Amino acid sequence: MPPPQHRITEQVVSSFSDAPPRLREVMSALVEHLHRFVVDVRLTPEEWREAIGLLTATGHITTEERQEFILWSDALGVSMLVDALEHELPPGATESTVLGPFFVPGSPLREYGANIASQRAGDPAWVFGRVLTTEGDPIAGAELDVWQNGDNELYAVQDPGAPDDHLRARFTTRDDGTYGFVGVRPVPYRIPSDGPVGRMLAATGRHPWRPAHIHLIVRAPGYRTLTTHIFDSTSDHLDADAVFAVKPSLLREFVRRTPDDPEAPPGTAGDWYSIENDLVLVAGTSEEPVGDGRTA
Amino acid sequence: MPPPQHRITEQVVSSFSDAPPRLREVMSALVEHLHRFVVDVRLTPEEWREAIGLLTATGHITTEERQEFILWSDALGVSMLVDALEHELPPGATESTVLGPFFVPGSPLREYGANIASQRAGDPAWVFGRVLTTEGDPIAGAELDVWQNGDNELYAVQDPGAPDDHLRARFTTRDDGTYGFVGVRPVPYRIPSDGPVGRMLAATGRHPWRPAHIHLIVRAPGYRTLTTHIFDSTSDHLDADAVFAVKPSLLREFVRRTPDDPEAPPGTAGDWYSIENDLVLVAGTSEEPVGDGRTA
Repeated sequence: MPPPQHRITEQVVSSFSDAPPRLREVMSALVEHLHRFVVDVRLTPEEWREAIGLLTATGHITTEERQEFILWSDALGVSMLVDALEHELPPGATESTVLGPFFVPGSPLREYGANIASQRAGDPAWVFGRVLTTEGDPIAGAELDVWQNGDNELYAVQDPGAPDDHLRARFTTRDDGTYGFVGVRPVPYRIPSDGPVGRMLAATGRHPWRPAHIHLIVRAPGYRTLTTHIFDSTSDHLDADAVFAVKPSLLREFVRRTPDDPEAPPGTAGDWYSIENDLVLVAGTSEEPVGDGRTA
Repeated sequence: MPPPQHRITEQVVSSFSDAPPRLREVMSALVEHLHRFVVDVRLTPEEWREAIGLLTATGHITTEERQEFILWSDALGVSMLVDALEHELPPGATESTVLGPFFVPGSPLREYGANIASQRAGDPAWVFGRVLTTEGDPIAGAELDVWQNGDNELYAVQDPGAPDDHLRARFTTRDDGTYGFVGVRPVPYRIPSDGPVGRMLAATGRHPWRPAHIHLIVRAPGYRTLTTHIFDSTSDHLDADAVFAVKPSLLREFVRRTPDDPEAPPGTAGDWYSIENDLVLVAGTSEEPVGDGRTA
């Protein structure tokens, strides 16, 4: 005779027998895996109550401005997993990674070479490269949507002391596929840790840090939209990103340069950095990025 | 080379390596099963967004008065599974089942034989029996906490037209372990279906009905607290309880009796029912019941 827990799982799975095929598949698999988890760890009633309490607190801290369920998905690696399943790429294509919670649509369109910092926010960083097909041909008129933090760790959307369009902008590639803008050297920062996800991180001995990076979304008609990062290859926390979003192919060298360098961005008084970063798109149709609670 | 999703799962699991042992075990198993679910069904970004939306809606409908996360746990059989794992019973002991969302602590204490209906609520039901040890000895002074719905489907806590103490009370067993009270014949009812759980039930072709039952919690010093139901053995929906709480051992015959029967409860004008139900407790310490959001 099977133990009673197997009968419960069978009963629940068979309750979905009249569901449409895909929904039946998803709900049956959800129940099977959820039940196996409960049985494997022999979840106690006290732990079950704790889980209900955590979910309830997650629901109550979640607002239009803050998506704690997505933060759970990020912090448990689910966002990256869904992304990995969706994006099986041909060789040479730029890899994708999480969108993160700080993307705000509608950044201002700027000209090639513009500076996206509205106020001092760290050492200048000249970010440049080409948008290319997997055959190496330039893609003219592709849109780059970029956003990053400054040396106070904050994105403009989090920072009451910064204008809305600080450190964010959209650019269009030139006829030869090139783009370029002046940002700042990004710094590591902590994911929001004052809610249930933060409690989990603290209780399990995990830290909330993400390595320094610049966010990009690249869109071009006839190509799959690419949501990715440029990671600083010398940043702390590359081996332990709190949301598991680092891919080795996305690391770039931030090359240190001096103010007397003839290529220094206009008005640069101290050391600056240059970062070369080509972006290779895959032919296809656009997709919504994973990880964005606010633009869904 | 393993596919990238396996590397993600490994990374997340190893992030818990410094957690206390039990937490590491629970979080690692949670991540492994959650990731396997995502991979097995190849969850799409669109489905991921739908799941985030459902969880967010669940959080926002959950209040002190309504626990939609517990309703998910009930409707996916998780509450019964946790209960089954916790309560491995010796032969002869009364089986447990879900508490459900309508328990309110602090019911009034009543004398043997009292009527718990404050107003007309259906055909009278004389519920009686003994509280016993697994050796068959009577347990004197055990407390029974009982609550049930009336023929309008509602529990007092849901029913603005009923006094707070309608169809709920506590009783104490007599020296010979006997108890008895007059309730009404309960009717099938629907779990709350105007929220995310209701949307899941409708989308998957499931109904929200529970078979007719009376709730009991039995407490006695030196015995494990028992949370259970008396199911009407002729009720609809016994084979498809929306929360999977039916156990064959908990079905009881509601015996139809006439008003001229000398055992008729005082004041009975029409047909009534008698239900004999012994309750067998297991020696041990008390436990909190599974399923109660409000008394946690």
